[in-house]
Amino acid sequence: MSHNTFGQLFRVTTWGESHGPALGCVVDGCPPGIRFTLAEIQHWMDLRKPGQSSFVTQRREDDIVKVLSGVMADADGETLVTTGTPISMLIENTDQRSKDYGEIARQYRPGHADYTYDVKYGIRDYRGGGRSSARETAARVAAGSLARKVVPGVVVRGALVQIGIHKINRDNWDWSEVGNNPFFAPDPEIVPVWEEYLSDIRKKGSSIGAVIEIVAENVPAGIGAPIYAKLDQDIASNLMSINAVKGVEIGNGFGAAEITGEENADEMRIGNDGKPYFLSNHAGGILGGIATGQPVVARFAVKPTSSILTERRSIDADGKEVELRTKGRHDPCVGIRAVPVGEAMVACTIADHYLRDRGQTGRLK
Amino acid sequence: MSHNTFGQLFRVTTWGESHGPALGCVVDGCPPGIRFTLAEIQHWMDLRKPGQSSFVTQRREDDIVKVLSGVMADADGETLVTTGTPISMLIENTDQRSKDYGEIARQYRPGHADYTYDVKYGIRDYRGGGRSSARETAARVAAGSLARKVVPGVVVRGALVQIGIHKINRDNWDWSEVGNNPFFAPDPEIVPVWEEYLSDIRKKGSSIGAVIEIVAENVPAGIGAPIYAKLDQDIASNLMSINAVKGVEIGNGFGAAEITGEENADEMRIGNDGKPYFLSNHAGGILGGIATGQPVVARFAVKPTSSILTERRSIDADGKEVELRTKGRHDPCVGIRAVPVGEAMVACTIADHYLRDRGQTGRLK
Amino acid sequence: MSHNTFGQLFRVTTWGESHGPALGCVVDGCPPGIRFTLAEIQHWMDLRKPGQSSFVTQRREDDIVKVLSGVMADADGETLVTTGTPISMLIENTDQRSKDYGEIARQYRPGHADYTYDVKYGIRDYRGGGRSSARETAARVAAGSLARKVVPGVVVRGALVQIGIHKINRDNWDWSEVGNNPFFAPDPEIVPVWEEYLSDIRKKGSSIGAVIEIVAENVPAGIGAPIYAKLDQDIASNLMSINAVKGVEIGNGFGAAEITGEENADEMRIGNDGKPYFLSNHAGGILGGIATGQPVVARFAVKPTSSILTERRSIDADGKEVELRTKGRHDPCVGIRAVPVGEAMVACTIADHYLRDRGQTGRLK
Amino acid sequence: MSHNTFGQLFRVTTWGESHGPALGCVVDGCPPGIRFTLAEIQHWMDLRKPGQSSFVTQRREDDIVKVLSGVMADADGETLVTTGTPISMLIENTDQRSKDYGEIARQYRPGHADYTYDVKYGIRDYRGGGRSSARETAARVAAGSLARKVVPGVVVRGALVQIGIHKINRDNWDWSEVGNNPFFAPDPEIVPVWEEYLSDIRKKGSSIGAVIEIVAENVPAGIGAPIYAKLDQDIASNLMSINAVKGVEIGNGFGAAEITGEENADEMRIGNDGKPYFLSNHAGGILGGIATGQPVVARFAVKPTSSILTERRSIDADGKEVELRTKGRHDPCVGIRAVPVGEAMVACTIADHYLRDRGQTGRLK
Repeated sequence: MSHNTFGQLFRVTTWGESHGPALGCVVDGCPPGIRFTLAEIQHWMDLRKPGQSSFVTQRREDDIVKVLSGVMADADGETLVTTGTPISMLIENTDQRSKDYGEIARQYRPGHADYTYDVKYGIRDYRGGGRSSARETAARVAAGSLARKVVPGVVVRGALVQIGIHKINRDNWDWSEVGNNPFFAPDPEIVPVWEEYLSDIRKKGSSIGAVIEIVAENVPAGIGAPIYAKLDQDIASNLMSINAVKGVEIGNGFGAAEITGEENADEMRIGNDGKPYFLSNHAGGILGGIATGQPVVARFAVKPTSSILTERRSIDADGKEVELRTKGRHDPCVGIRAVPVGEAMVACTIADHYLRDRGQTGRLK
Repeated sequence: MSHNTFGQLFRVTTWGESHGPALGCVVDGCPPGIRFTLAEIQHWMDLRKPGQSSFVTQRREDDIVKVLSGVMADADGETLVTTGTPISMLIENTDQRSKDYGEIARQYRPGHADYTYDVKYGIRDYRGGGRSSARETAARVAAGSLARKVVPGVVVRGALVQIGIHKINRDNWDWSEVGNNPFFAPDPEIVPVWEEYLSDIRKKGSSIGAVIEIVAENVPAGIGAPIYAKLDQDIASNLMSINAVKGVEIGNGFGAAEITGEENADEMRIGNDGKPYFLSNHAGGILGGIATGQPVVARFAVKPTSSILTERRSIDADGKEVELRTKGRHDPCVGIRAVPVGEAMVACTIADHYLRDRGQTGRLK
Repeated sequence: MSHNTFGQLFRVTTWGESHGPALGCVVDGCPPGIRFTLAEIQHWMDLRKPGQSSFVTQRREDDIVKVLSGVMADADGETLVTTGTPISMLIENTDQRSKDYGEIARQYRPGHADYTYDVKYGIRDYRGGGRSSARETAARVAAGSLARKVVPGVVVRGALVQIGIHKINRDNWDWSEVGNNPFFAPDPEIVPVWEEYLSDIRKKGSSIGAVIEIVAENVPAGIGAPIYAKLDQDIASNLMSINAVKGVEIGNGFGAAEITGEENADEMRIGNDGKPYFLSNHAGGILGGIATGQPVVARFAVKPTSSILTERRSIDADGKEVELRTKGRHDPCVGIRAVPVGEAMVACTIADHYLRDRGQTGRLK
Repeated sequence: MSHNTFGQLFRVTTWGESHGPALGCVVDGCPPGIRFTLAEIQHWMDLRKPGQSSFVTQRREDDIVKVLSGVMADADGETLVTTGTPISMLIENTDQRSKDYGEIARQYRPGHADYTYDVKYGIRDYRGGGRSSARETAARVAAGSLARKVVPGVVVRGALVQIGIHKINRDNWDWSEVGNNPFFAPDPEIVPVWEEYLSDIRKKGSSIGAVIEIVAENVPAGIGAPIYAKLDQDIASNLMSINAVKGVEIGNGFGAAEITGEENADEMRIGNDGKPYFLSNHAGGILGGIATGQPVVARFAVKPTSSILTERRSIDADGKEVELRTKGRHDPCVGIRAVPVGEAMVACTIADHYLRDRGQTGRLK
């Protein structure tokens, strides 16, 4: 809705820079009576946490979430229960090395927002990317961990489906494999390919892009809205807000441009249980902006990390030409850690639409 | 942002169904003192208007825009000047043939929103797709015609770059060709290919998807916002709200997933005029959600028209299985008429961010 | 929420000037399945309509509401049923006499928004007050007529309780009297007093202020929100948006400043039916921003009509001092016709909070 | 705009309960380049701080504000400069005595939001009023301290003008006296009257209401908006969101109901400097929702503190009738500490409208 807030009834406002004392979010509009533990939140935080493998940044942050408001402790002393008031969550920045960035305080790193921040604001927190650091996404994951609990039965999962030119074999898709490798890969056969490929890129100080797929199951049919605030529109918007994302698609996505109406439309039948079902899911679970009840399928493309060791031509804030290399501890493929972030954004979007639909139509409980 | 409104300072609310008496929009927050003529609006309306070639629907609508509020007539009696109050625009529906749709009033057309509307609302205006008809986009084009005038110097143009499997040759790109063929094709060599291809599809009663590219030039560097309400996010969101759109990308888009950081980042230099410039535009004119000053480049994929003459399996509102064909007058490639709509959505997004940036930073005039 | 829209889930956007071709509103987010007739809307419109007695403006407008979208006709051909899509309502301006205003096109009428519009926008529709004409409130009444149907059982009524220095005797309060006099007075004894008082003011070409009280019954306990978007806050906000309103109070209002905690707080007991009830309603039906289930009671003060026949000192757009009298056909007490407008605003606020509460808590159906 | 956020371009989101670890706010949309020190913020915090005299609660909180994001330290090491990104401010709760409230955990205190919270949410943080504690207003004062710096030259001041039946003598108004007494009284002669009156009320364990007046000077003419989002509407809305406020008025307010158009309208002349000026300010600095450039004058009524020592009849969460007295450390006149809170809310509203006007019209710098 506004610069650092998204959602209408389930609203998330994030704040914080990479090298300040802390970052966090305020989740407003969360229904009362939702029960969770800090350990549950931490489970999701740990998936996004840096320093977990050689394929992600070696910065080490514990990413411990403190819940400062909006909850009451249950009798067991461990379970927290939401009260319906805003939930403030805070994550301290513990492993900051501002000196790494000192020499580029006035230089514009290619592919980064350095230049555009300076043009817009005339001032910029250069330390670690400041507000535009991917560290901001920790707050999204924290918010998403609550959003997952808003819609009964909904399950939101993500997987990496492409790194550079290497795509998974979709026939091998196995959700249970996602946790068995450092890539969130659902295809075990791609893992050694990516390991070798990415090790090579990392050694060169280079980086590479990726594509992530998010699948949400048990999304109630009927949530969404027809024209603006379409469910797919809001998913696209929220995924596009993740750092480095350059493209988003739903269901067949760009592939839909290449096929005929006969191939693309999903036919329907009545099942033995008397309920309607679809014979395919080209639509990615959304028709006319409204959920069909099938799995919601979204993909997004993440560009290669802009921080690379190769020397690049740029300019500085004084208008002088410079050549610069971005030191620091960076992800060779920032797309990997984008998987839990994408899940969080889809979970928040679905929670918001669920509450809005319940509001307007009174259909859901 | 809300169900039928988009934008924050330059806000557009649309209303109306395909077969009601009229449809329209309210443009709120438009700056005062903007001068325009009805003929200028009509120019953009005519580009989207049905019945212009054999490749689009044969429904005939004049799409005459009436401006009901928010303007004063200038001394010349022809120029209208905005006063800063909401501008209500109305377009009458003149060529409705509700009887065409009678027999599918209770049947769910595959690929359409019929089923999801019924699940959500329990009631549905089945005539011509009702609210989810692409006729709603006429109101967007009307709003966009004003949005184009908000940012001094900005030019927003669109072109069709792919129909089905046939893509343009980008080396042939010539903006002046776009108006010379019924496809908004910037490549004259693709025109006969598409003509034959699409004629064949039309004769079969089938349909096909397409990809549209929108380019906005002279977008002031610095507009946008860093985290949520990114310029690319809002462009993606607003393009995704167009009927039948299944994917959106900015700059390199999904292609960015396949390349390295060295290949993707845009280097900078200082020109002879002392001003910074970029050596490439992989970013599509946006870094960290903020405009770089380069052309903003967005593409979106439109699925094939779901209304086809081939018999398809579906169900009806009574839970019975049916086979149905969608009669009526449909676009074989709805992507064609999406070109001016995409332009309008990008123009509105840029106008909105321009006003917001001017508000927060006071930088622009 | 934004300049010409109010409400979050039940959103009303109004547009139109006094002397343009028409004015109207778009009601977005209205639940589907609400049934109404045009005659029902007209009932509320007629209460606000000008020309009904010698105590209101003699301008004659039929104020016929056309519903352009968002509804389907029921089988009876008369009842309209909302479909959940935006409802566009239009009211034509039929009795415009722009020439009445010609000579004050560049003069700033004291108490009017002429000067401030010119400062803000640099352009102003001077005809009949343009956008700031009380004619805009016709659109609110139209929207309110739908809002009244959103919350089951809710009844919103208003009455005039004070004109100038003459207040009603609250002991005489009888809702059934409100329709029996041209003042919406609930106290029959005040009617002759006001008649004489207001006739005198009208003959002098003067005007006078008033206070209106709105009472909403059967408001579900629990709607509202604790801190911002309080039910009383949103009622105050929406009443304050009515032309010429200078003060708003809830329950005891300003009177609460003069009494002790013992006198002001409403005690509770359990009724014979096992349900809680309050022994008094000093709070006006709202505690901590949330409805108690008691009647919601709000009052608002309307300043005297600024258009008077007495010559007043002012300036014009060229910075010259002028003396001016406001001709035209004006209400000697604009507070009278504000009664149905106040009802409409309270009805819309309650409908919105009802849907929002249903969304966040899932409590209501 | 939404439950715990207010403002459109200058947006404040508050969070936190009375007895949690902390409370705070996120200020989003603040312009970049605003310079402030923590000492400046603390100046305003201290005015609202409890424990300052025998006439306010004896709870002791230092109310130290930590700024966690959105700023860079200037070279002097003390001045902070806003960067345009969201500013998170946190205030720890240090003097909590939850045991004071233990016995009323399930009882509904008359005049409090206990009952309505339980109805709405089914769960309630009973400790010290939870979210509805006036402690939440500390976050508003912190946000307001930044808002004061957004509009060049604007000065927002407040004063207590009435406690119970004792009003100040407006002829004695002297802003320099406001800081010389524990009441924010602008009339030194009222101070001994209020001291005696309030001491008596405090000794009885009772409480009393009050009226506060806020005056904003140097508000740029032209900010505001004509119909919804009027400047007076948004001031009324934001003042009404303060705990215990039951009425709001602008300029003549309810007094405008009692006078004629001749008496109420403010005439204009041209000054020797060639600039327009008003001969009076009955309008309270706002015409048609837009600032005239005169001082903006708003008043609001605060009800007596509901927490009193007198035994009152009520019920508990089990539906049983109880008699209860509210122990704890309470303000006998919560209106006193509402003065800096009212100032903060008006300052935030003006800052927001300033940015919005600059956005839409480009008039301001």
